[in-house]
Order: sequence, then structure tokens, then C-alpha cells
Amino acid sequence: MTAATARSRQVRLKSRPIGIPQAEHFEIVSVPAPEPGPGQFRVRNIYLSVEPAMRGWVNAAANYAEPVPVGAVMRSFAAGVIDRSTLPDWPVGTRVTGLFGWQDHAIATPAEVDHVVHDDDLPLSTALGVLGLNGLTAHHGLLRIGRPQPGQTVVVSTGAGAVGSCVGQIARIHGCRTVAITGGEAKRRQCLDVFGYDAAVDYKAPDFEAALAGACAAGVDVYFDNTAGPISDQVLCHLAVGARVVVCGTASVASWDPPPIGPRVERHLLVKRASMQGFVIMDHLAQAEAARRELAGWVRAGQIRYVEDVLDGIEQAPDAIAGLYRGDNLGKRLIRLVPDADAVAP
Amino acid sequence: MTAATARSRQVRLKSRPIGIPQAEHFEIVSVPAPEPGPGQFRVRNIYLSVEPAMRGWVNAAANYAEPVPVGAVMRSFAAGVIDRSTLPDWPVGTRVTGLFGWQDHAIATPAEVDHVVHDDDLPLSTALGVLGLNGLTAHHGLLRIGRPQPGQTVVVSTGAGAVGSCVGQIARIHGCRTVAITGGEAKRRQCLDVFGYDAAVDYKAPDFEAALAGACAAGVDVYFDNTAGPISDQVLCHLAVGARVVVCGTASVASWDPPPIGPRVERHLLVKRASMQGFVIMDHLAQAEAARRELAGWVRAGQIRYVEDVLDGIEQAPDAIAGLYRGDNLGKRLIRLVPDADAVAP
Repeated sequence: MTAATARSRQVRLKSRPIGIPQAEHFEIVSVPAPEPGPGQFRVRNIYLSVEPAMRGWVNAAANYAEPVPVGAVMRSFAAGVIDRSTLPDWPVGTRVTGLFGWQDHAIATPAEVDHVVHDDDLPLSTALGVLGLNGLTAHHGLLRIGRPQPGQTVVVSTGAGAVGSCVGQIARIHGCRTVAITGGEAKRRQCLDVFGYDAAVDYKAPDFEAALAGACAAGVDVYFDNTAGPISDQVLCHLAVGARVVVCGTASVASWDPPPIGPRVERHLLVKRASMQGFVIMDHLAQAEAARRELAGWVRAGQIRYVEDVLDGIEQAPDAIAGLYRGDNLGKRLIRLVPDADAVAP
Repeated sequence: MTAATARSRQVRLKSRPIGIPQAEHFEIVSVPAPEPGPGQFRVRNIYLSVEPAMRGWVNAAANYAEPVPVGAVMRSFAAGVIDRSTLPDWPVGTRVTGLFGWQDHAIATPAEVDHVVHDDDLPLSTALGVLGLNGLTAHHGLLRIGRPQPGQTVVVSTGAGAVGSCVGQIARIHGCRTVAITGGEAKRRQCLDVFGYDAAVDYKAPDFEAALAGACAAGVDVYFDNTAGPISDQVLCHLAVGARVVVCGTASVASWDPPPIGPRVERHLLVKRASMQGFVIMDHLAQAEAARRELAGWVRAGQIRYVEDVLDGIEQAPDAIAGLYRGDNLGKRLIRLVPDADAVAP
């Protein structure tokens, strides 16, 4: 096909959701595929990322990024291949990741590229998951904020998730005892059998509180929190002296406007000399390369395993965030736009 | 008088309170003054300390110290003078502080002394306040955990209190803009006129929320929290990116059993990349001497002012903690057991 006839599909934000965005908040439109101008290139997106943080990107409430405007292409990380370029240093065939949006093609400049993917021996999809922001989030949050020591107990909420599964495995590599909190027996088994947690607790099970208490009998030294809410309320009851709570996400909270209420945390923090610390991985990408190399080494050595939940076709995108919050996925959720994705890369 | 006839009064815990201990939870008894055995000395208490943390010491709920047993002398910091000694290195007349309890006389060993008071130019009472645990708490919490930078905004709840007033003045010395939260117009004026805060807000006033928002328009970089509760809920709405919340006390919370509920904090911590960190000064006394010297220098130079609320006579003790939580005091609350206290010291 030629540039004149090529089409590009876009998933646009149709209306602003309160809480978790549903399929009805998006629409798919077809537009002529864009052409790069001077200083630009075009990226053919191959994988689109789906992650919990995207809820915050479309809500109007205070957040760490400006909300996506109604009518705009949905903001999203994506991995793709440059298929048109005006820049000799950025030739066609270069594999890149960035905030290229939920669309077939994106026009970008070098400054908009997060990462040039050189790990040709690993699937391109890993650049959005275990070797992308999910892995970097796990690495930074656990090692810089959680600071686990060998022998300590590390608890991870959404322990089977894209970030959580990586946290658990990095903690294990560092000699920690690891405990996953996850929803349902299938994910619980996955935590034990695939991700190698020492214990895994199903928060949906009637014995959750007792099971958690049993798994955390020695106290929780690091709690890597992706959920907040009632799950975290229970974990905070088991903090060890000097515990670090890494506040990474709030998946269990349907809406922050108004903020939900729960047990106040100050007494836990005071009695246990504990800390809670929030972070946003986008602040720390300048130091990402060393972490990415370390993660890639662990993946190649089989010390970190990852599971992907791949949805085929852009028409899967509108419901994909809601599905994540329903817990439909078993692994890192991606949307694949090209059937034989890794064959596209040169 | 002789050892055989001397009496000593003790304030004992009569029953275990739920929440804030009231006068009825204590009783005063008179016993023969104790005599030191080998390796011991006797301390004549001159000042007894009254502080918010004592609530936690008598409650049964989890805390950082074992609860005071019913029937035992109330645990308390005190400053006094050795008046009997079996140890040549600890002569009569030595001024000491320690957990000597709410009583006239305490038997102690060298290991039980927190501090030997050498600052003879300063009143002995300061050894329990601005140069004692209150000052050390302010110094450690603000400088080690809050880590304020010049030009940043530091907000202090109970800004006129024994710890809070010291926090505000240390922050000012470090070039920060300081904001006190306090209860009532008298304390608000004290914060401005005595402790030199740049702004002071009365949490009991109807315009509290607006006044706080106005005083924190540039965002709160450090929040030194002595109250928790609804006051803190408001402060957390104004955190700056990278803010540090120093969790020092929870004076506004009447009981932690069960924990009160309030707005969940995780979204603030995440969006503002902020931290909340609890600490207990008793963990850090090994590094206290340098801080104490620095504080004494600031007091001598007039850069730190302190206000004391002295109750005369041990019979004032039983109601003294409850009075603190009622906000009766205007400054560090002490009970003086000897009328001309500083004349007792040699």
C-alpha cells in the first residue's frame, strides 16, 4: 500500500470517566496514516501497553500527569518499529518504545523515544513489561525505596501482576522471603509455581486475614503496595519494626474523588518506626539503563520469569483497562496490532 | 530528717484507662523513702515531665513500650539530684535525668541515667524540655527525617507545644518558611510573637481550611505531624512534590482501639512522591549529645525560646496528662516537687 491510501486506526477518549474507564468511554476511528515532517519519523506500533496507571490518565482528579483531553488519542506506552524516517540516525527498522498512544501509527521525534530496543534476542513485548516500565518500577521501588535485606519478608499486593511478579522475583534474588497477595486460586498457583513466592495468599478467600497473618508471622519488612484499600489495611497490621511501605499503586480503589476512608495509618508508622513512600517511575528514567541491563540479565538467566496476557487487535483496547481492574488478566496485558509481531522487527 | 523517718510520695496507676488517662486512673500513696543498695544511688526528683506519649504508656494497645502495670509507679521522665549514693563516681549533688517515675525519690543505677546535666548556666527544667527529649525529638525528626532545605515551607501541628515550638524555631534557623497549626488565639499569638513562625493558623477557628490553604499556597515541603486526624487530613491536601511527613505524635486521636477512620493517604503520597515516616526518639539517643549541644547553643544565643507550664506539687500529677490533651497548657508541662528548684542543685 502507498502513503496516500494507508489508514491508521486510533482509540480516542470519547467521554471522561469517573473511576475506572470502561469500553463506552472510548471510540475507534480510522484516519489517513500520518506522514513524518522534517525532524520526525513514524512508528508502526506493534504492541500497545495496558496498565493500571491509565485510569489516572483519563480522570480529572489531581494526578502526576495532565489528563488525556476528551477527543484525543488515548495515551499509552507502545513498542514499535520506525517505518518512515526523515532522520539518518533513526533508520527504518529501529525498534523503539515511547508514549505513542493507542493507535496504529505515531509521528515522533527523537526526544519522544523512551528507549531504543537493542535486546534482539528477547521478544519486543518485553520492552513494555519486564524490561520496560513495569520492570523498572519494580526494580526502583523495591531496591531504592523498599531496600530489602537478605532474610527479610517482602509482601507484594497484586503479586501476580506485571509489576508485582517482578518485585517478588527481584526480592527472591536478593535473598528475601516473599509473600504474594493475589486474587483467585489460578493466580495464587501462578505466584507459587511460576514466580517462586514462598507463600501466596488469596485476598478473595474467606480465610484471607488468617492466611496473611500466618504468612507474615515474622513481621513484614517491606510491603510493596499496588492496591491500597482493605488489603493494605491488613498488611499494615503486621509491619515489623523499621518496615518500609512502597506506595506504587492503588488498584483496589475505584475512585479518589472523593477519597475513600479507611483506618488511619499513623499509629502503625509510629509504633513500628515505619515509612510509607510514594514514587512515580517517570521521575527516575535517567537512571534506568543500569536497571534494565540487570533485569535483562536475570531474564536471560531464567531468574525472572514473566507472563503476558496478549489481546489481539486494536478493537480489544477500549475494554482492556476495565478488564485489568476486574482481574481478567493473567500476566502483563498487551494489545498486539501485528499478528507475527517479532517477525516485523528486522 | 533521717532515712528512717523520711517519706516518699508515689503516683501509681490505679486502673487502666481506655484512651486518655484521667485523674481517676491514678492514686497517690506515701511510702518510706527508699535507700540505695550496693551499686545504686537515690535520686531526689525535682521536676517530673508530663507528655503526650504517656497516654500510650498506660494503654493496653500495641505501643513502643510495655504498658505500665496497674499498681506500679507511673512511668515518667524526671530531672533530679542524687541525694544518697554508694558510688564514688556518682556523688551526691549530681544532676541527672532518666525514667525515674512520678515519685519523690527513685533508686537508680548508672545504666538508668539518660543524661548527666552539665549545663549549670541553664535551668534544670530545660533538661526535660528544650534540651531533653522534646528538643531532641524536634531536632532528629525535623533534620534527619524532614530534611528541610532553605526556602522550603515547614508546617508544624501543635506548633506551640514543647516539641512543635522547637521544630518551628529549628526550621527557621535553617532558613525555612514556618507555619504553625495550634488551638486558640492565645497559642496562635504565642506562635507568632514568641516562637517566630511566619504564619500561625487556629484549627478551632471556622476559617481553618481557608487560612491553612493561604499559609501553604506554595505547597508544604515538610509536615511535622504531632496530631494526625482531621488537622493532618487538611495539611496533606497541600503537600508539595517530594514532601516529607514526619509522624511524631497523634495527639488528636482519642483512642486507637479500634483505629479511627479517615481519608486514605496513598493517593497524596503517590501523586506528590511524598513520604510519611514514623520515629521514636528513644531509638536515637546514642547520637543525642551533638544535637543537645547544638540546641543549648541556640538557647543561649536566644535563637530558640521555650515556654514552660509548671504545676507545683505532686498532687497535680494525676490530672496533668488529661489537661495536656485538653490543651490547658501554654508550653512544656512540668510538675515541680521542690519550690526553689534550681537552688537545690549545687
